[in-house]
Amino acid sequence: MEFLLRVDIAKKQATYEPVPEAYQSLGGRILTARILLDEVNPTCEPLGKNNKLVLATGLLSGTPVSSSGRLSIGAKSPLTKGVKESNSGGTLAARLAQMNIKAIIIEGQPEQDSLSYLVIEPDSCRFMFADAYRRMGVYAFAQAAMNQFPDASLACIGPAGERLYNTAGIAITDKDGCPSRYCGRGGLGAVMGGKGLKGIIIPRKGKGRVSNEEAFQAAFKRFSQILRDAPSTKAYKELGTAAMLERVNSLCGLPTRNFSQGVFEKADDINAQALIKNISDRGGEGKQSHACMPGCIIQCSNVYVDQNGKTIVAPLEYENMVLLGSNLGIGDLDEIARLNWHCNDIGVDAIEMGAALGVAMEAGLASFGDASAAMKLLEEVREGTPLGRVLGNGAAITGEVFGVTNVPVVKKQSMPGYDPRAIKGMGVTYLTTAMGADHTAGPTARAEVDHASPKDQADLSLKMQKLVALFDCSGLCLFCIGAVAPDPDLILELINARFDWNKDIDWLNTIYLQMMQIEQEFNQRAGFTKLDNRFNEAFTQRKLPELGTVFDVPDEEIDRIIDLICKDT
Amino acid sequence: MEFLLRVDIAKKQATYEPVPEAYQSLGGRILTARILLDEVNPTCEPLGKNNKLVLATGLLSGTPVSSSGRLSIGAKSPLTKGVKESNSGGTLAARLAQMNIKAIIIEGQPEQDSLSYLVIEPDSCRFMFADAYRRMGVYAFAQAAMNQFPDASLACIGPAGERLYNTAGIAITDKDGCPSRYCGRGGLGAVMGGKGLKGIIIPRKGKGRVSNEEAFQAAFKRFSQILRDAPSTKAYKELGTAAMLERVNSLCGLPTRNFSQGVFEKADDINAQALIKNISDRGGEGKQSHACMPGCIIQCSNVYVDQNGKTIVAPLEYENMVLLGSNLGIGDLDEIARLNWHCNDIGVDAIEMGAALGVAMEAGLASFGDASAAMKLLEEVREGTPLGRVLGNGAAITGEVFGVTNVPVVKKQSMPGYDPRAIKGMGVTYLTTAMGADHTAGPTARAEVDHASPKDQADLSLKMQKLVALFDCSGLCLFCIGAVAPDPDLILELINARFDWNKDIDWLNTIYLQMMQIEQEFNQRAGFTKLDNRFNEAFTQRKLPELGTVFDVPDEEIDRIIDLICKDT
Repeated sequence: MEFLLRVDIAKKQATYEPVPEAYQSLGGRILTARILLDEVNPTCEPLGKNNKLVLATGLLSGTPVSSSGRLSIGAKSPLTKGVKESNSGGTLAARLAQMNIKAIIIEGQPEQDSLSYLVIEPDSCRFMFADAYRRMGVYAFAQAAMNQFPDASLACIGPAGERLYNTAGIAITDKDGCPSRYCGRGGLGAVMGGKGLKGIIIPRKGKGRVSNEEAFQAAFKRFSQILRDAPSTKAYKELGTAAMLERVNSLCGLPTRNFSQGVFEKADDINAQALIKNISDRGGEGKQSHACMPGCIIQCSNVYVDQNGKTIVAPLEYENMVLLGSNLGIGDLDEIARLNWHCNDIGVDAIEMGAALGVAMEAGLASFGDASAAMKLLEEVREGTPLGRVLGNGAAITGEVFGVTNVPVVKKQSMPGYDPRAIKGMGVTYLTTAMGADHTAGPTARAEVDHASPKDQADLSLKMQKLVALFDCSGLCLFCIGAVAPDPDLILELINARFDWNKDIDWLNTIYLQMMQIEQEFNQRAGFTKLDNRFNEAFTQRKLPELGTVFDVPDEEIDRIIDLICKDT
Repeated sequence: MEFLLRVDIAKKQATYEPVPEAYQSLGGRILTARILLDEVNPTCEPLGKNNKLVLATGLLSGTPVSSSGRLSIGAKSPLTKGVKESNSGGTLAARLAQMNIKAIIIEGQPEQDSLSYLVIEPDSCRFMFADAYRRMGVYAFAQAAMNQFPDASLACIGPAGERLYNTAGIAITDKDGCPSRYCGRGGLGAVMGGKGLKGIIIPRKGKGRVSNEEAFQAAFKRFSQILRDAPSTKAYKELGTAAMLERVNSLCGLPTRNFSQGVFEKADDINAQALIKNISDRGGEGKQSHACMPGCIIQCSNVYVDQNGKTIVAPLEYENMVLLGSNLGIGDLDEIARLNWHCNDIGVDAIEMGAALGVAMEAGLASFGDASAAMKLLEEVREGTPLGRVLGNGAAITGEVFGVTNVPVVKKQSMPGYDPRAIKGMGVTYLTTAMGADHTAGPTARAEVDHASPKDQADLSLKMQKLVALFDCSGLCLFCIGAVAPDPDLILELINARFDWNKDIDWLNTIYLQMMQIEQEFNQRAGFTKLDNRFNEAFTQRKLPELGTVFDVPDEEIDRIIDLICKDT
């Protein structure tokens, strides 16, 4: 039997509740959205007592299926003021699922300005004082937790979450105990900080439960083989996400100097080849390939090292290489990696922080290309100086405070590493997902289409959004898409076998369209209108210099996609 | 014949255009709203090239009618992102009207970061370089302009407008050349700053035009007599706006320490009696009563002086006494007056700045009651430090940056001197006017009702909003309401005589309801929904300690008022 673990912060109480029937077939992103819509007033103050933080496991989490341990965290976002789900690899989702905890719902607010952390074991959920860890960086806190619970898996916030920054994320430990997997987007760390919660610790591994072992083993074997044989798996293992950099630069869509350019003249110095050469030449702790969860076949990740072979940051991924690299005019991987580590340690979303720093550079607070100035700004973020607090609240507020109108945001959330004037399908995703600018909600950059043309981008985005939904709910990593998407029955087989269900493919398709509908409904109730699904003038009127284009997918197409999402299935 | 003066900033061109027929019977606030709806895309970037700044004269401006020289300035607000009109006394509207300029429309943006000022004479409109005046305070700029044009009337911005702060207002000179009349609210100074315009100077007086002199003189005499005899005029002349302080404090609605209390223990030290005693005891330049426009019968204003009889600020008005006084826990009129002068000189709306400082104090940046700390914060605003820029962008952004959720705003605009949990009709006005929290849009505090009861407040607010509209369009000061409102035919007579029209009272009533409809329509097109017409949880869930009340006029009542405004007449 599965449970919901409900944590009442004000009363310092944790209660195990049976999973309501309506939630039993939900997992991951849809489960966070459903609980939020059912329990949270969409107009509530995101940092107040009426918001809730939901951590949900995917339907396949806790099983040995490769890449099935994504953890979904959801809340009303203090950044977008709309619904938010952000998911991450690491080990926490599997551990929760192995304890039969389908989701944790954290509600209320402490009476005093107290800080605590939760320790969840199969037979107890304890509140521990965290005053000793106040303002502690993410890496040090994780280390302290590991000292106490050597095999722990954890979620935690850094100073950013404690300071209630809109850029604050929630860090999750990977299979090696490194807390650099991030539910980064939308300020979820600030929601956790607002609840006075520094961390959630699960000291012990469990064992996954599968109801129909025989059927599961058959599907599991087939899944593993397909994933192992897929060309996409090989590409991710060899080059990781960094491979995207060369492609996007060649499409003239690489965010450069606060999205004022789409081609970075130093792209070759920070692309996948450069990354791999450094890791391979430098040896030591470096790893070209690395898994964030046990049993992952893809192993897209890496450990990036300095000239002495000592780890700078693990991993160094595409979005951060762009937002902290080309977007700041910085063409040195070591410098980017160091900025990335500090973002992780402070506990901010490196995408949002990179975008905020880009806006700050346009405002003249530092020169583009000046990594040490960027580092000083990050120190201000860590220390909570007024300037640091501005940056810590993201690109939109930074623009407003410094009078910069070229701000790369949708619904106040900053764009990741794809300029929507060059990769227009991604632009449609930014506009039509309820999440604000988010590449993972419907990635189109790998499709073989004319990305600079407005034609057919809306349908491409919708197709990808539907596909992604399936993965986000099952707990499967998006990077299985290339291998598994042609055979969705396989995922259904795994789910059916795990729970001994007999669901059909229509159920799968219905459930996941419902997810998007729930998200859109939350935002509507929060006051969003179709005008929130538009770019600002920096993307509709200011031409991308290399292509001479603006984002020109017609508003009607955007509205049509939303209508398709919202209509009854 | 009247003209529109259209100023194209990019081309440095000014063109006189005949007034379109549809605008001929409009004036003041409705004229700004109509032009904005016709010419400005409501979704445009407020600080960008597509926004326009409209300065409109009232229908009676330029005539000898007492208190008829209010100038309406409108634009899409960078603070609320909705329609905005802010009006002010002083001499500019009369001068424009006397040159037959019904309105000025300022559009476009300079190519470079250039600063200029306009000099408007009957036969020319010149662009002058203002680089020498960059970042100059409002008082010094006005002095410099007066040195060049000794009899000038002007509108100008301070450093705040140049820095594009959302709190930036536009200062207007009074009959003595003192630039402390303010179109303060909604960041209109930032719109002017975004157009690279430091000031608008009208060097010479003109002469008003009246089409039917005989009819006009008759109505004019009657109007003047009624105004002279009204008890409200006597009260304004004797005590000024400060008289409101004692009343609001006794209603437990005096914003105190960032709206955490409704009664200020030092209210007696900063009320009208204290103000008048200081002025009267100290002599020198002090004036208990003062007119901002020539010919004003009411003379509600004052010149507040220090112990040596030297002017600290002129005038010192109720809203500023509250927002810079009790709201900051400051109970010393001299200190409040000094803060007020600095706000004026920097060029910020003292209401919004006082609210931002209150939030900053709650965040711990200074202690409540510490006037010298507040002054230091104002210096940061002037200098444009990061902290100063945060405060300069208003209470909502200050709250977001510093993680304070008790923020007294509606549509991101801060509340003036009436706590809506105690004076609930004012709360209805804050919510239902398109302007954001604005007392002038429908003041209810003088009504003889139970202000703490939610009952009948919605209708009271609507009644006042309709009444105010009449004054805001005619150019008449609100403070004529007590005297003239019982006899709206009198205003109609004046307007008819001035233009030799034959309009009836239905026209008057229709026109001014239309004004509110246009404003609401602009906001709807800008993406506002009924959820923007709500208080945040600090006013719906946090009780005002003295009364134990929250704002509890039902949402349905708020929506009903909007429906009544928006329905066809």
